Amino acid sequence: MASDLDKFFDSADELSSSFKERLGKAIHIKSVSSEADKKDELTKMAKFLADELNALGAQAEPKPLPNNLPPVIIAHYPKSPDQTKPTILIYGHYDVQPVTGQTWHYEPFELTQAGTGDDERYYGRGTTDDKGPVVAWVNVIEAHQNAGVDVPVNLRFCFEGMEESGSTGLAEYLASEDGRKVFEHVDASCISDNYWLGTKKPCLTYGLRGINYFKITISGPPTQLHSGLFGGIVYEPLTDLVILLSKLVDSQGNILVPGIQEDIEPLTEEEEKTYDTIDFTMQDFNNSIGPNTDYGIYNDPKRTLMARRRYPSLSIHGFDGSANGPETVTSIPPWVTGKFSIRTVPSMTTGQVSELVTNYLKGVFEQLNSKNHLDIKMTDSGEWWRTDPEVKNFKAAELATQKVWDNVTPDLTREGGSIPVALDIQKGLGSDKSLMLLPIGTSSDGAHGPDENMKVKNYQNGVKVLGAYLHYFAEKSIEG
Amino acid sequence: MASDLDKFFDSADELSSSFKERLGKAIHIKSVSSEADKKDELTKMAKFLADELNALGAQAEPKPLPNNLPPVIIAHYPKSPDQTKPTILIYGHYDVQPVTGQTWHYEPFELTQAGTGDDERYYGRGTTDDKGPVVAWVNVIEAHQNAGVDVPVNLRFCFEGMEESGSTGLAEYLASEDGRKVFEHVDASCISDNYWLGTKKPCLTYGLRGINYFKITISGPPTQLHSGLFGGIVYEPLTDLVILLSKLVDSQGNILVPGIQEDIEPLTEEEEKTYDTIDFTMQDFNNSIGPNTDYGIYNDPKRTLMARRRYPSLSIHGFDGSANGPETVTSIPPWVTGKFSIRTVPSMTTGQVSELVTNYLKGVFEQLNSKNHLDIKMTDSGEWWRTDPEVKNFKAAELATQKVWDNVTPDLTREGGSIPVALDIQKGLGSDKSLMLLPIGTSSDGAHGPDENMKVKNYQNGVKVLGAYLHYFAEKSIEG
Repeated sequence: MASDLDKFFDSADELSSSFKERLGKAIHIKSVSSEADKKDELTKMAKFLADELNALGAQAEPKPLPNNLPPVIIAHYPKSPDQTKPTILIYGHYDVQPVTGQTWHYEPFELTQAGTGDDERYYGRGTTDDKGPVVAWVNVIEAHQNAGVDVPVNLRFCFEGMEESGSTGLAEYLASEDGRKVFEHVDASCISDNYWLGTKKPCLTYGLRGINYFKITISGPPTQLHSGLFGGIVYEPLTDLVILLSKLVDSQGNILVPGIQEDIEPLTEEEEKTYDTIDFTMQDFNNSIGPNTDYGIYNDPKRTLMARRRYPSLSIHGFDGSANGPETVTSIPPWVTGKFSIRTVPSMTTGQVSELVTNYLKGVFEQLNSKNHLDIKMTDSGEWWRTDPEVKNFKAAELATQKVWDNVTPDLTREGGSIPVALDIQKGLGSDKSLMLLPIGTSSDGAHGPDENMKVKNYQNGVKVLGAYLHYFAEKSIEG
Repeated sequence: MASDLDKFFDSADELSSSFKERLGKAIHIKSVSSEADKKDELTKMAKFLADELNALGAQAEPKPLPNNLPPVIIAHYPKSPDQTKPTILIYGHYDVQPVTGQTWHYEPFELTQAGTGDDERYYGRGTTDDKGPVVAWVNVIEAHQNAGVDVPVNLRFCFEGMEESGSTGLAEYLASEDGRKVFEHVDASCISDNYWLGTKKPCLTYGLRGINYFKITISGPPTQLHSGLFGGIVYEPLTDLVILLSKLVDSQGNILVPGIQEDIEPLTEEEEKTYDTIDFTMQDFNNSIGPNTDYGIYNDPKRTLMARRRYPSLSIHGFDGSANGPETVTSIPPWVTGKFSIRTVPSMTTGQVSELVTNYLKGVFEQLNSKNHLDIKMTDSGEWWRTDPEVKNFKAAELATQKVWDNVTPDLTREGGSIPVALDIQKGLGSDKSLMLLPIGTSSDGAHGPDENMKVKNYQNGVKVLGAYLHYFAEKSIEG
């Protein structure tokens, strides 16, 4: 195997121009799933991906979804699975975040290579989230063929086009008769759609926080009122709303909803020890926010990591209905909505969180003795996910990482973010098959933000890690 | 005089079609001062007004203002003042509020006549605020000429085009060499730019609340952050902001900024008595908000009126920087601005209010122990205004109102709203000359809102009241 891997690595180095060109073509397609006028770009992107895979001998098919949603691409490589090889299910997404309202230093939809040395990066929307990793899987096949090395597993791909818009339609597809076939004969699954904890050390991810998204609306007068004529004599919805929101979380990030804390798994001594070896400093943390910044609540990296991955958080995101924007407006809005979300951890449940938040806010509102009306809606939710990292799937990725990244043992991490699709994949796999998140980009890639990028070295090494992972997984001698 | 007035009234009745046509032409011009693409419409509206006045023998001139602001129209009627007559300065504005974000049942920029009997109304943006009253002054001249009755005073007009956008440029103009001439030889001044307290009884207004507008900004991380990756571990600006805003005012409208209450003039027994005779019920109040509504804080009309006119109020209006709108966005905004205003009353001052609010919020913010930054700006301000209603200016308007509105004695009112220009006019006049607000529309006209309107009867009788006021003012036998 060692010789196969070396050939594959050399081949990947040789093909760096081809890899860059493929990523460039992908970045050039403006497949923003949240913008209605980008439907054609999503179709174009799906076709591009399927064509690339088919050109390499895969059998890739865009599966149409209802309601004119972008298709899910299901692909098999090789076309006919080799029954003697294990099968790995790969998930990724070909849609990207919008760029509106952001100031970029580079063209968002053109691949730009800039910087030098370790900081040489490919800039462009989707370079790290998630076109870079998706294209890297295609590169893995190309590099094998170029090297004359057999891909040691059957690959099953599931690439969706709605991840940045709540993965609408995917769960339904995966639960359908056709969709369930995606999981047939699958031995393990891998998603490369997150990031290293910092910028230097690779990691493997075995957990995610869940998310419960709330929109609470206070409504009152049937129409907008003049604050000169009515200020001080009517119950103002926005006054009530800020009071309610101020009772949810304090400046130090402590959630004030009673009962939420009770559902958090207690920290064991054993778990606490796992934080000792993780390569993460407050310097890393500050750098991930911006140069010379200092906005961390905890000055301790261990406590910071714990808060990110094993404790819940509550963030307020914005408003609707009020006079928003820079203008000086003096009216009293007749209704206002406040938007906030709670990231959840084991063993919280959506049902419990919803009930606790609803009852608590209703109680606070009642005490206000306001004549306005309160409406609480949980508009989106995804449960937390956690799997056992002591299995072959993770072991193979660990060996691959060590091989490519100078013998560094990747940190085992849980993520603060939520990837609801991970739940759907795990559900399709069943609890006895392992799902792993294997990031190739770093925390400084600016996913979702302006100047999204991936380090050139991470893109190249990412192809190698993903390929090597398949080889180690196919090794019969390796146990989890 | 009685016979002159009767002729003028008959003439006004005869000319109702002409009055409607003139108002229709004014409504048709989209002179929205807050929208940058409406510059031409403001110029058009200024020209229309000047042309109408000049056609009636006035000398009207659009005075250009710096920075491409809409002109101020200064007009004299007659062209050469008659030294034997008193001179009245009339202020009004020809710009209107925007209609964006509102659902109208009528075309906003077409005059529509709808309803029957007492509820027959002219609908359209500006019908009551303030094109209706402005055009009514023009109608007054026309009706006199048509009746062959001499206008018994010299009229001086000052019509601006930026009132709905903070009257930018007007105060500077009125303080300039040319602007100061507006006040030369003026005996009294009248502004028709507010509304009756309810829908049935006319009023004369001798006071206004002031306004101090604040924008407070909390800024932190240099860029938008992912709430999954950073929620619970960074100081979030929006968390701090809602806490600050929640400490400004309670649900019942009580301002929580210490010291604000101390600057309010105590209520005297004498003042309290004046509320006894005012025609205002909670039914009137509820109707002014909408049919079958009940959002009043005080169930007592007297206390409601007091809160509107002699006590301050604080309203929160909206936000900037956060993820505003209906979308489900999960980011942590790097900075957020909260907008609120305080309506002020005697003897509060802008300087004191600004200091109290700033010191209080800084203190509250310090206690949060947040690493974010607080910036407090008072972006707009206008002091309260109050004048002596026991003078000839008010007496003349009272007699005019009684004559036109079946002998009803108008209520003497103070307004909850703020018309900063009243301060500038009063300043130009000097404290020895009387300024009066003489509204012709009612509280149900929907100023600033959708379906803005003026009752047909109020428009017609408004012309008569404004004209009769000039006659009573010119009567030497009438004393204040």
